[in-house]
Amino acid sequence: MKNRLFPQHRFVQACFSRPVDQTPIWIMRQAGRYLPEYRQVRSQAGNFLTLCKTPSLAAEVTLQPIRRFGFDAAILFSDILVVPEAMGIKLSFSDGEGPMLDPPIRCRKDIEHLKATVNPDNDLDYVMEAIERIRSLLQDQIPLIGFSGSPWTLATYMVEGGSSKDFGTIRKMMYNNPSDLLLLLEQLTTVVTDYLNAQIRHGVQAIQIFDTWGSVLPFELFQTYSLNFISTIIAGLHRVDRNGLAIPVIVFSKGCGHRLKPLMESDCDVIGLDWGVDLGKARRQVKGRVALQGNMDPAVLYAPQAVIRAETKKILHRFGPHPGHIFNLGHGITPDVEPEQVATLVKVVREESRAS
Amino acid sequence: MKNRLFPQHRFVQACFSRPVDQTPIWIMRQAGRYLPEYRQVRSQAGNFLTLCKTPSLAAEVTLQPIRRFGFDAAILFSDILVVPEAMGIKLSFSDGEGPMLDPPIRCRKDIEHLKATVNPDNDLDYVMEAIERIRSLLQDQIPLIGFSGSPWTLATYMVEGGSSKDFGTIRKMMYNNPSDLLLLLEQLTTVVTDYLNAQIRHGVQAIQIFDTWGSVLPFELFQTYSLNFISTIIAGLHRVDRNGLAIPVIVFSKGCGHRLKPLMESDCDVIGLDWGVDLGKARRQVKGRVALQGNMDPAVLYAPQAVIRAETKKILHRFGPHPGHIFNLGHGITPDVEPEQVATLVKVVREESRAS
Repeated sequence: MKNRLFPQHRFVQACFSRPVDQTPIWIMRQAGRYLPEYRQVRSQAGNFLTLCKTPSLAAEVTLQPIRRFGFDAAILFSDILVVPEAMGIKLSFSDGEGPMLDPPIRCRKDIEHLKATVNPDNDLDYVMEAIERIRSLLQDQIPLIGFSGSPWTLATYMVEGGSSKDFGTIRKMMYNNPSDLLLLLEQLTTVVTDYLNAQIRHGVQAIQIFDTWGSVLPFELFQTYSLNFISTIIAGLHRVDRNGLAIPVIVFSKGCGHRLKPLMESDCDVIGLDWGVDLGKARRQVKGRVALQGNMDPAVLYAPQAVIRAETKKILHRFGPHPGHIFNLGHGITPDVEPEQVATLVKVVREESRAS
Repeated sequence: MKNRLFPQHRFVQACFSRPVDQTPIWIMRQAGRYLPEYRQVRSQAGNFLTLCKTPSLAAEVTLQPIRRFGFDAAILFSDILVVPEAMGIKLSFSDGEGPMLDPPIRCRKDIEHLKATVNPDNDLDYVMEAIERIRSLLQDQIPLIGFSGSPWTLATYMVEGGSSKDFGTIRKMMYNNPSDLLLLLEQLTTVVTDYLNAQIRHGVQAIQIFDTWGSVLPFELFQTYSLNFISTIIAGLHRVDRNGLAIPVIVFSKGCGHRLKPLMESDCDVIGLDWGVDLGKARRQVKGRVALQGNMDPAVLYAPQAVIRAETKKILHRFGPHPGHIFNLGHGITPDVEPEQVATLVKVVREESRAS
């Protein structure tokens, strides 16, 4: 990875732990239900999946929070479950119930019915078209983040048939039919690698891999069933864009802030942290080898502005002087937050990190 | 705490990191739905809460897993939510829905309507009677563990009005009305201390404090909103029984295995760990200052017996030579496990830890 060219965006610079004028900020689910303009487009689309699959609308909602708050990065509006759908599972979202995948994948025969590979330019063409549109709208003012779920996290939804409280089915499978589960994860690894490389070809300038459910795994099996596949994906990514500029890879593994050492070994550039972790301690542990993204409790955005300011300062001071920090929430923003609260957060991060 | 007398039970010895012949084992929710004899008594009682409140039946189900598996400790059959109920909230359990508490506690007025103190001998007399009965049935062959939820964990149910996915209401309260929440937690601390001391007076020989939802808290607020109150409770416990024998205190804080240092400072004797943690690494961190309890993934009990054996050996070997380890699952046993699987687990722990 020598002789890489680094883009000048503040966000990408920070991802590579390079000097920045102030701490960049974006927030997970920044294009979402807390914004009235999002709710309007969403109701226009009729349902969530149609919104994901209509490039003009997906591009529009991707841009909404950028216009409103001036975040330092945009993130593609999509859903991690479009990947299992492209592999041949029926995907639907019912209000309040979460996603449903049908049929669930529970044995070798189920796995063999899935598409072993996916052609993103065909099977996920609407994602690629959205990326092209967003890039064109952004005019390179800020970079665009592409993403995927990790194989393990995607597999939890595929095996459970949707969201789960205790992940009983996939955990049973793990101890009873490990070879079937590993086969599914390998297949997902191929598909996700191809998918992310296609996103890069079409224009994303950073990649985030969401390992939302890695924390379900015992520490040793976290390596076996999740991190190994993430590492394989990262090794298979073409980490420069069409102009030869370096593309950072962020791994967000919720609840795994105590697994920084193995996470670093995935060869990612950034580790995303939830709010369970002391950001200062994490920085001392990673010793500059990776940048860190996070990690405010999303519930702080329900608080009075003085509390938002105080909590923001705490996080910035805990991390210490930049570079190497991307400010974010520790998980997605919740739908009932007032947009003005987000404006306050962005303002405080700017003011306080310029000062530090 | 000098000149304490130590009971000879293997379980208590291990809690105090004293020499044992083999690693003791009990499992969380060992008296529970996976046992056909439990289901029979449960249907006889009609509902879960009646079972908790009928001392003869509570004693019977407490003893069932002891007869079947010969565990090294019994744990009082009860529920952590009898405490909020004794403070004046209506508690009910609906099948599949989890517990419901009514009215939920959301402001100072709600808190003022609660009983500020509880007389366990009156308000929770059925618990005390169950303890006396169990002790008499056990004839001191093995010790009896009493327990309570931590103030924070009890407060999550009281504020949310039941179980919760994201704990949105209590987290809002934490950032918006911290003084109200702290008042509630102080009140709970008094009640829980009195409750546990009453359990000790009536005969329990060890205490476990369940901080099931401590992991919801940012690391710094974990101290403020959960651990400080646990420490206050521990400081207020009369940690010797009526015969002058020492009583160990176990703190089980699910998802907080990366917070061992603050947990140790609570002055507990044992930290209970879930399966997210490397038991060997945890032992090196605690340096013999506390014993450790755990930490097998409950899903291992779905696996073939050879896998149960292999996973059990892994955990024993990771911990290394006793003393200072109490074998347990990393969370409660699930209802659909076959009892023979538990018999295998107990057998392997015995065989392998005698050998080590």
